[in-house]
Amino acid sequence: MEVFDAAELWSRERIAETQLTRLKATLAQSRKCSFYRERLDEAGIGPDSIRSLDDLRRIPFTTKQDLRSQYPTGLLCVPPSEIVRMHCSSGTTGTPVAICHTQNDINAWADLMARCMHMVGVRREDVFQNMSGYGLFTGGLGIHFGAERLGCMTIPAGPGNSRRQIKLAKDFRTTVAHILPSYALILGEHLRNMGEDPRDFPLRIALVGAEPYTEEFRKRIEELFDMKAYNSYGLSEMNGPGVGFECLEQNGLHIWEDAYIPEIVDPDTGEPVPDGEVGELVMTSLCRQGMPILRYRTRDLTRFLPGPCVCGRAHRRMDRILGRADDMFIIKGVNVYPMQIEQVIMTFKEVGQSYLILLENDGIGDVMRVQVEIRDEYFVEDMRALQSLQKVIAQRLRDEILVTPRVELVESNSLPRTEGKAVRVQDLRAKK
Amino acid sequence: MEVFDAAELWSRERIAETQLTRLKATLAQSRKCSFYRERLDEAGIGPDSIRSLDDLRRIPFTTKQDLRSQYPTGLLCVPPSEIVRMHCSSGTTGTPVAICHTQNDINAWADLMARCMHMVGVRREDVFQNMSGYGLFTGGLGIHFGAERLGCMTIPAGPGNSRRQIKLAKDFRTTVAHILPSYALILGEHLRNMGEDPRDFPLRIALVGAEPYTEEFRKRIEELFDMKAYNSYGLSEMNGPGVGFECLEQNGLHIWEDAYIPEIVDPDTGEPVPDGEVGELVMTSLCRQGMPILRYRTRDLTRFLPGPCVCGRAHRRMDRILGRADDMFIIKGVNVYPMQIEQVIMTFKEVGQSYLILLENDGIGDVMRVQVEIRDEYFVEDMRALQSLQKVIAQRLRDEILVTPRVELVESNSLPRTEGKAVRVQDLRAKK
Ligand SMILES: [Zn+2]
Ligand SMILES: [Zn+2]
Repeated sequence: MEVFDAAELWSRERIAETQLTRLKATLAQSRKCSFYRERLDEAGIGPDSIRSLDDLRRIPFTTKQDLRSQYPTGLLCVPPSEIVRMHCSSGTTGTPVAICHTQNDINAWADLMARCMHMVGVRREDVFQNMSGYGLFTGGLGIHFGAERLGCMTIPAGPGNSRRQIKLAKDFRTTVAHILPSYALILGEHLRNMGEDPRDFPLRIALVGAEPYTEEFRKRIEELFDMKAYNSYGLSEMNGPGVGFECLEQNGLHIWEDAYIPEIVDPDTGEPVPDGEVGELVMTSLCRQGMPILRYRTRDLTRFLPGPCVCGRAHRRMDRILGRADDMFIIKGVNVYPMQIEQVIMTFKEVGQSYLILLENDGIGDVMRVQVEIRDEYFVEDMRALQSLQKVIAQRLRDEILVTPRVELVESNSLPRTEGKAVRVQDLRAKK
Repeated sequence: MEVFDAAELWSRERIAETQLTRLKATLAQSRKCSFYRERLDEAGIGPDSIRSLDDLRRIPFTTKQDLRSQYPTGLLCVPPSEIVRMHCSSGTTGTPVAICHTQNDINAWADLMARCMHMVGVRREDVFQNMSGYGLFTGGLGIHFGAERLGCMTIPAGPGNSRRQIKLAKDFRTTVAHILPSYALILGEHLRNMGEDPRDFPLRIALVGAEPYTEEFRKRIEELFDMKAYNSYGLSEMNGPGVGFECLEQNGLHIWEDAYIPEIVDPDTGEPVPDGEVGELVMTSLCRQGMPILRYRTRDLTRFLPGPCVCGRAHRRMDRILGRADDMFIIKGVNVYPMQIEQVIMTFKEVGQSYLILLENDGIGDVMRVQVEIRDEYFVEDMRALQSLQKVIAQRLRDEILVTPRVELVESNSLPRTEGKAVRVQDLRAKK
């Protein structure tokens, strides 16, 4: 197996040994800001408290609220002059979260990202089109630096502007793209409207992530473009992209455990859940100098996939993100994740490219409507067939989420489109 | 004098010597693409033809049309796998121009950009906010890489969104910004509307460029923010920013002659103009491997400033860009550059922050109207004073451009604002 760097193939033992060493160093580094120093002191964790990886659990969690409280630079663990980059969340709601990086941090991040791309066969001969927004959002510069580090011809196309994306990809024979899954569909539609077959497009690999989508959805865009789509996971608090990535097996995302310690905990109790069970991902950075972060509560729901990966890499795999702890909505007393609904409806061949979940209150109680686009070839005038499909979808949804929604079949392209993250849920219920 | 690298202080002799060596190497490199090989062969220029820098003039010019004709990769002089970055013009009109860079090209570009910033006192302790668009436009990534190379804390803020720009700059105590001159005014207005004095803003240095503006305009934004604004020059065909930059003297832009050979020629004849006379800037890249470009006709009008710079650097200085050969408009048979008009009106203390040139045809002949915003304190109801000001401005304009325009004084903030490049001329004449 050709690998980008040695750490990619480390054994479980070597990984664990390195994690322990780096965790100790990270703890020492984190104490250089008063926030962590005080918090670790309160928890009674001194320089010699960590003797094994199990001691990790003694370290208090860091929440998004903690990061906000330390905005802008409360968590800095190096002199400000050592910082070469700041990324921050858009901050449209409340205080933003800012993450500051040293040159070493940036280099290590680029290496991890290059390792992800190399793992799925991206090479310096590839032409890579980055359809992410640049600027403060980490998906742009983060992946850009990784692709250049790997030596790809990197096209910083930025988001949107389908006509230009298509022209660039054709003119430069783009083989690899970083693209939002929902935008891949839009691009495919655009090509079809131009009378072209997206399968003739030169793309062979897509890096996808940044919004939730199902396995069915992934298969759909893979078939649409005759390419492979690999799931990417990252969050700006842990640099950005490059945290976890699928190998060629497409069976879970390897988390780079030489750079991070992942845990999965019960979102309510904070206690670890057994391997294979869904919970909230918690991450500790191991290589960051500028702003190390300990046991960060990501709010992302996933599970560890048990057993070793066929590919031979020992870095633990997590499942695709199954939702956000915060995206959950409650209807008729039941917890529902939008992803559960998508997973059901996308198994129907009649279903088109978009859907929308509407939560309403009809004066008596909560009502969930699910609007589902139906492909043109099935949207015939045979009312009986459509009614029957509607009924089957509603039943399958009830089986999954224990609530019976009102399913409405709509024509393809009739639901609102967006070039950014797709909006899947509209909660129109009056706030209580 | 503290300098970023040794080449910054090279003597005239050392520069000339290096230029000759690098010109020969660049010619050899350029022959690796058939376009230049054929063109040089046609001109009878072989590997040994260049014996002195004067032989440069025997090399044919390269025009934007040439670059377009070779889109996308006709000018590539390395194997495609050596390319790590592509930048290209937006291509909204006609075929775009694409420039491909190797890793060495990117590194050399970042070094030049860092040298520019270092020259005006930017240091790793500074916080640098890049208000340029990222992506394919070189002002984003080009300056970003330079700032990180210098070790500044770089905030990739991107363009627009004044509220966020102000919040970031305040929260991180931004000391240096890359900003469009017209946007600096908008930001200042925004601060004033918030009831704040822009002079209390932490900015101490601005890198400005990318759109034409006058010395008066520069002084105005310097006073507005109590900062220094340094003119930056670059064009994507020669990498992007980092080609020329003002030193602390603010008296012309040093062109980095270890990396480029600049010439100034008559735009019509292509013959060199005497030092100090205005003409079209022609540039030859000396360090580029991926896509060397020989004697590129920039269409930018400027002149060499004669004599050595007080700062001691021997790299030749050019004047600010005095216009685009293509921006020129003809009215009543006279060639006029918008910059000539701005230079005149901005000398009046009564004049506010914006103006607009309207070219119309009243059925009899061409008419030029110049709408000029007047500061609130002067926009009094004393009609006589305003009429007299109107007349004086018209006379001064006639003296400069030999045509008498119709001058209209308007209230401040009444002309359309844009967050991108300011639109200064509207040609409403029917096309002939
Ligand atoms: Zn694997
Ligand atoms: Zn100087």
